[in-house]
Amino acid sequence: MKLEHVGIAVKDLGVSNELFKKLLGKQQYKIEIVESEGVATSFFSTGESKVELLEANNEDSTISKYISKKGEGVHHLAFNVDDIAMEMIRLKNAGFELINDQPKAGADGKLICFLNPKTTNGVLIELCQDIKNG
Amino acid sequence: MKLEHVGIAVKDLGVSNELFKKLLGKQQYKIEIVESEGVATSFFSTGESKVELLEANNEDSTISKYISKKGEGVHHLAFNVDDIAMEMIRLKNAGFELINDQPKAGADGKLICFLNPKTTNGVLIELCQDIKNG
Repeated sequence: MKLEHVGIAVKDLGVSNELFKKLLGKQQYKIEIVESEGVATSFFSTGESKVELLEANNEDSTISKYISKKGEGVHHLAFNVDDIAMEMIRLKNAGFELINDQPKAGADGKLICFLNPKTTNGVLIELCQDIKNG
Repeated sequence: MKLEHVGIAVKDLGVSNELFKKLLGKQQYKIEIVESEGVATSFFSTGESKVELLEANNEDSTISKYISKKGEGVHHLAFNVDDIAMEMIRLKNAGFELINDQPKAGADGKLICFLNPKTTNGVLIELCQDIKNG
């Protein structure tokens, strides 16, 4: 598995875009709204992997809840897999708890699935697979 | 800047090595004690970047303190830079607060410096530069 991106929960995407622009010495390459997850996101290229900033779009968003409880900071780690359905079965059989039983559409043209951080050392893990065209 | 590794604070390196072995489908490639930081570490290759597990060696270790306060989870993000001294000046001038004023020796043959997470959206950022031989 390759680390695809690190998701960081932020209160204000505009402010944090400026902060990460200064920190990384480059602009975000994409801003995307993911209605189904209730988030606005922006992506910075950091080599083979990316930094994804996540701002809540509404109070019910998992990002709002995360920030209320823990404050801004690293929210999840995403790993690229070739076949998400197969990986979900493998990990379930290995004792990991899946948060969603079926892959769902995420940001950046991907199918995603989250693992319960209680089973992964307190780290929210996302699996992601590129949605193939055609 | 390239994402070099993600540091994850764990209570028991043996237990977490087994967990990440199952999760990532591979063994750690290195275990290293960093006396100066009071940690035992292990590294998993995840593409261009790495996952570094960190267990405290003693109660005064920053990892012990982190786990007491926040529990297990993502502890820091490390970015590779070519010239750490120059980056430290650039970031200080851009308003970021450095935790150590001089680069220090870290794990994996690197010079490192940490930025105060209060100035970086709650994310502890490590800069790292490979120590050149000869």
